[in-house]
Amino acid sequence: MEFLDDIKVGARTVLGRHTFTAAEIKAFARAYDPQPFHLDEAAAARSLFGGLCASGWHSVAMWMRLNIDHQQRADAARRARGEPVAELGLSPGFRELKWLKPVHAGDSITYASEVVAIRVSNSRPGWGLITFRNTGTNQSDELVLSFISTTFLQRRPER
Amino acid sequence: MEFLDDIKVGARTVLGRHTFTAAEIKAFARAYDPQPFHLDEAAAARSLFGGLCASGWHSVAMWMRLNIDHQQRADAARRARGEPVAELGLSPGFRELKWLKPVHAGDSITYASEVVAIRVSNSRPGWGLITFRNTGTNQSDELVLSFISTTFLQRRPER
Repeated sequence: MEFLDDIKVGARTVLGRHTFTAAEIKAFARAYDPQPFHLDEAAAARSLFGGLCASGWHSVAMWMRLNIDHQQRADAARRARGEPVAELGLSPGFRELKWLKPVHAGDSITYASEVVAIRVSNSRPGWGLITFRNTGTNQSDELVLSFISTTFLQRRPER
Repeated sequence: MEFLDDIKVGARTVLGRHTFTAAEIKAFARAYDPQPFHLDEAAAARSLFGGLCASGWHSVAMWMRLNIDHQQRADAARRARGEPVAELGLSPGFRELKWLKPVHAGDSITYASEVVAIRVSNSRPGWGLITFRNTGTNQSDELVLSFISTTFLQRRPER
């Protein structure tokens, strides 16, 4: 990550894109959300979703995967350029998670994050809190999920 | 599920308990949250968590698994007694998810749900919205996570 002091509210990052296959939708559902419309095409066709779709927990967990992959790639590039890398701290949680459209088998979801707030931590010197609005958008440009996350982020040591 | 009309605010259900093994913590992390403190004991020992711990997305996905298992067991018992079963509808989302303590390898988490609000839907006749406060508590009786969920639930047909 960049240091807290070098980030501006409004900055938006496309984290990556993922296509959800039927096989991985069913594998996640068997482990964490075994409802018929996440497990079986015929049952899903009869359900209010009209077809096999991913657990909402699966579609949001994939945001986390692409977020981590993106941060790790960006940090490796910073190190390769000889630049310092800011440490990300704990996330106290998230809020306002909305599942707005189903994610069906074959859908490609583009995940992004936009900085919506930055503040210096009063309790932890050298750290601040950064708040993102995170989204997933499908191949028809429809928003399928959004949520707000906050995480601790290191401040620039020399400032 | 019971029908919306038969549920009272304050009703609390223990959904079940799950012990997180190191192997499953790493398997979830490889797929959805590949950070060192979820993947590797030595790296985790050096991290601010002090030891291998589950992704927050893993600990909350397991709430969903135990919730579904509980509902399916309870519905099967209702059918065996010849009782009707209410249909659960879509969940528009979640709010106020808090990860309060790490879930370390070997921790046993008891998941529970408490009804905090019930209202009849104006837009969908025959349905209502039920809101739960969901929690996970470890073997030392410490709250490790909580969040608020809302979902559509069928009303009793004859009322």
